[in-house]
Amino acid sequence: MPALPPAEIGAPFSEIDTPALVIDLDAMERNLALMAERVRALGIRIRPHAKTHKSAIIAAQQVALGAVGVCCQKVAEAEALAAGGVRDILISNEVVGARKLTRLAALARHIRIAVCVDEFAQIALLGDAARQAGARIEVLVEIDVGGRRCGVTPGPEATRFAAEIARHDHLRFGGLQAYHGSAQHLRTPAERKAAIDAAQQAVMDTLTPLQAAGFTCDTIGGAGTGTFPIEGASGVWNELQAGSYIFMDADYARNVADEGGNAPRFDHALFVLATVISAVKDTQVVVDAGHKALSNDSGFPVVWQRPGLSYHRPSDEHGVVAVAPGAQKPAWGDKLLLVPGHCDPTVNLYDWYVGVRDFGTPHARVETLWPVDGRGAVT
Amino acid sequence: MPALPPAEIGAPFSEIDTPALVIDLDAMERNLALMAERVRALGIRIRPHAKTHKSAIIAAQQVALGAVGVCCQKVAEAEALAAGGVRDILISNEVVGARKLTRLAALARHIRIAVCVDEFAQIALLGDAARQAGARIEVLVEIDVGGRRCGVTPGPEATRFAAEIARHDHLRFGGLQAYHGSAQHLRTPAERKAAIDAAQQAVMDTLTPLQAAGFTCDTIGGAGTGTFPIEGASGVWNELQAGSYIFMDADYARNVADEGGNAPRFDHALFVLATVISAVKDTQVVVDAGHKALSNDSGFPVVWQRPGLSYHRPSDEHGVVAVAPGAQKPAWGDKLLLVPGHCDPTVNLYDWYVGVRDFGTPHARVETLWPVDGRGAVT
Repeated sequence: MPALPPAEIGAPFSEIDTPALVIDLDAMERNLALMAERVRALGIRIRPHAKTHKSAIIAAQQVALGAVGVCCQKVAEAEALAAGGVRDILISNEVVGARKLTRLAALARHIRIAVCVDEFAQIALLGDAARQAGARIEVLVEIDVGGRRCGVTPGPEATRFAAEIARHDHLRFGGLQAYHGSAQHLRTPAERKAAIDAAQQAVMDTLTPLQAAGFTCDTIGGAGTGTFPIEGASGVWNELQAGSYIFMDADYARNVADEGGNAPRFDHALFVLATVISAVKDTQVVVDAGHKALSNDSGFPVVWQRPGLSYHRPSDEHGVVAVAPGAQKPAWGDKLLLVPGHCDPTVNLYDWYVGVRDFGTPHARVETLWPVDGRGAVT
Repeated sequence: MPALPPAEIGAPFSEIDTPALVIDLDAMERNLALMAERVRALGIRIRPHAKTHKSAIIAAQQVALGAVGVCCQKVAEAEALAAGGVRDILISNEVVGARKLTRLAALARHIRIAVCVDEFAQIALLGDAARQAGARIEVLVEIDVGGRRCGVTPGPEATRFAAEIARHDHLRFGGLQAYHGSAQHLRTPAERKAAIDAAQQAVMDTLTPLQAAGFTCDTIGGAGTGTFPIEGASGVWNELQAGSYIFMDADYARNVADEGGNAPRFDHALFVLATVISAVKDTQVVVDAGHKALSNDSGFPVVWQRPGLSYHRPSDEHGVVAVAPGAQKPAWGDKLLLVPGHCDPTVNLYDWYVGVRDFGTPHARVETLWPVDGRGAVT
């Protein structure tokens, strides 16, 4: 059973129960508009990553602003988004296992589906699943452009994959998946530029033999919130997959912006609202949000607009907020806003988004309760 | 919407889709029986912590083996467990906020409810909520016995709280909550013993003035899987709150056992089953379980019974498994069992437990699909 929503639509901000996953709707809409403007200026496509928000209604807003569709990482996520009306999904990941291939092919009868491969034997399995379902699946060959995770070695190997994909009537070779995940959080613009330049070389080393063999890549996909201005200006990538820009987490905010001004500044639009449940000690308070309310894998959350307060020592359902000398200690029962260290796995902990209009003002009110459609969609 | 179960009851182990939260039912039942036997020998009560499993059916098994009820940390968790038939719940935590107090008092009309306080002003609010609901709530005073989290300072302060609780017709002073969380994972028996000895002194410093003022503590609660033999033998604590023993995570397994043999060895009974989705490189494979399938707050999971394989570099939906020189590299499509670093927040990521009988044998089959009743119950 999903948890009950922590607020009612129309309620004042003060009535939101905690912990709650709160969207500053105005900030999110600014982020959406800013990215749409940037992508228009670059003259290429965007297919935002829905693994960040897992929400069909947010995906619909991205599509309304020009996105060609969305990415996600799992078949179950794609099912949840499709059930909410999303019509064009790239699973930017490998999908392995008979049960998953059956579900993928079934979904491909109803919406446009693309998926990645990096294992030769997988192509025939995908082809069989699509044929049995009477569906058509687009396949991107993933290449490892530096993330040292999935993907074939850049170079001629991808041409062998493309040829095998082309042998299957129910598959279509769509191009390359060339995402450099670990480049996103390199702190300086120079480090990010160097990583993406190397990735670009890897893509070109792969494209040359593909083109020589007569293959066209409709899609060369990749890029995230940390690097998309670089891929976007490269002339090589033609479909950006940034996702986190919509919410901006504390870890992305630690990236040093590009001095050239190419990196737009997105606003923090996602918060975990927490309550001070214990204030016995002079130099700390305890809030009701721990590991089960915040994913701390990329650093602890930042306490929003409360200088001198720092979140640390989380346990399952508690977080300790240290009060620096001279800082104002929160009172027992006060609510604090926390900027998650990492939005994506934090969103996955909640059943509901609480969308707030006029966030941060005395008129702040709950305007939307949106389900996190793909919450827990791990398979 | 909850995710679909990753398997069917009766299916062979090989058909479980991944990632899946898998229980070795035989190991769990051994852990349950071993703890029941230990607690009987100690001659005190156990109220296992259900924040670990969040499951009404597992709570019912604990009660059937002698537990007086369960603990949990949140009102929403108590609601979920009560809906599944649990009749006696201590929320071993502070519950702050008008909406939560209303829900707590409403629940107390239907089952036996106890809760902790460490803020004097909270007592009147609790008393009002209970009176308005026509309910009766038992209240424990939490004292900080060394965890430096919630709890009043040990000593006479608790007597002032007890007297205030006694003034309210709809409240009942139940005793002390004296849990030392950070002692659980101290690695050596000597460190754990020293921490609990200090906690015991804190309890006694609190009990003396309480008894002098005529108050009786029906409950002196605390202890976890790492230290319960010490509290259990102390003659001070009379209700143990261990929870993790039922599953045993990788972090608890790193504790050095008590040389005196007082610490029973519980078995790993909870696993995340993952699939190798990429095997391009010689020295690593990639599995389909990352931060959204495993909580890595207390260290990475251990790859079960596969020497030379180590999980590292997780991202949202991927984990890299390094293959040491000489170790057997898993094949593409193979499934690996991972022992979570920390069970509690890992369980909270899943909608379903897949209970397996004859785990680890060729006859292994899915015997149960149990919902994680309190999954996402953060409020």
